[in-house]
Amino acid sequence: MAKPSHREKILTEGLRVVHERGFAGASVRDIVAAAGVPQGSFTNHFTSKEAFCLEILDLYFKGAQATIQRTLRNDSLPPLKRLRAFIDAQIQYLNRIGWQNGCLVGNFSAEASEHSEVIRKRLVEIYEEMRQAVAYCLKAAVKLGEVPRKTQCDELAGFLIASMQGAILLSKTERNSVPLERFKHLIFSTLLR
Amino acid sequence: MAKPSHREKILTEGLRVVHERGFAGASVRDIVAAAGVPQGSFTNHFTSKEAFCLEILDLYFKGAQATIQRTLRNDSLPPLKRLRAFIDAQIQYLNRIGWQNGCLVGNFSAEASEHSEVIRKRLVEIYEEMRQAVAYCLKAAVKLGEVPRKTQCDELAGFLIASMQGAILLSKTERNSVPLERFKHLIFSTLLR
Repeated sequence: MAKPSHREKILTEGLRVVHERGFAGASVRDIVAAAGVPQGSFTNHFTSKEAFCLEILDLYFKGAQATIQRTLRNDSLPPLKRLRAFIDAQIQYLNRIGWQNGCLVGNFSAEASEHSEVIRKRLVEIYEEMRQAVAYCLKAAVKLGEVPRKTQCDELAGFLIASMQGAILLSKTERNSVPLERFKHLIFSTLLR
Repeated sequence: MAKPSHREKILTEGLRVVHERGFAGASVRDIVAAAGVPQGSFTNHFTSKEAFCLEILDLYFKGAQATIQRTLRNDSLPPLKRLRAFIDAQIQYLNRIGWQNGCLVGNFSAEASEHSEVIRKRLVEIYEEMRQAVAYCLKAAVKLGEVPRKTQCDELAGFLIASMQGAILLSKTERNSVPLERFKHLIFSTLLR
């Protein structure tokens, strides 16, 4: 197996460090220290911390895109089961990495969007991609009669994506799954019946 | 009128700067520069940036507490009208200060809760106080038959507080009121009927 390059090490370890400490809270020094590479190596591979953070945001979102394909856009499963699997995947992921980290997309929205216009624009695109995947799933649920025909799928999808981010934010603060589990329970027992 | 003391100037201007740039993004140097006071003045009045940020969080939340008394806990108004007024107050506030700032409570949840255990604990208390105020209002709505008797007010209140934070987070990212207006429209047309 090929040894990971400095670039790969900076991306992998840097993603972890920025996810833990935040866009402004993690310095380039912290990132190279975690990657175990000299500081000059960062400058060789990335033009700025902003450019680096845009790359780790895409790296992070690749994981979410894989989950979306396996769940929300997986036509072989009943639609509401897919949505439940999508939320369960977030719960499992946060259980594994630790609730205190929250979602990198949400963290960057709260923080990096103030400091970087390119990151803010990328975040808007990411939310839109997630919203479309949830809307796709809800439209399938309408078609199969799992939710009422009058459901406004695009609006409800936007609401669900934002609400889930809010639940993850409170779970991050409380350091437990309660807010996110409450979100899941409440939407399936009220909005999605 | 008495001239504002250095302490007051640091609190007022520092709250604005930290709200704009974040807990890690705003330095003590930024704060004293905005307040127009010497750096030593900060150290005279606050033991650390953490202690200072705990004070501005309380200062910020005082505004929210006044809104809660005027809306959610205002027994002279019909309950759902109070909840609507509470959300409208958030919309008006963010319209005034600028959508890019978001809610300081949400921003600190995403960011400062990683760096400071005392701030994290205070945030948990703040969410709990807001949740109780929404639950108080929902229970009054049940009593008056504005929402179904079977409504689980405490759970729904927790869901609404988290969802509103999520909507504010997306409004901050998109820099417009759409996600928060969508939140308001959706809860009143579905969950609170």
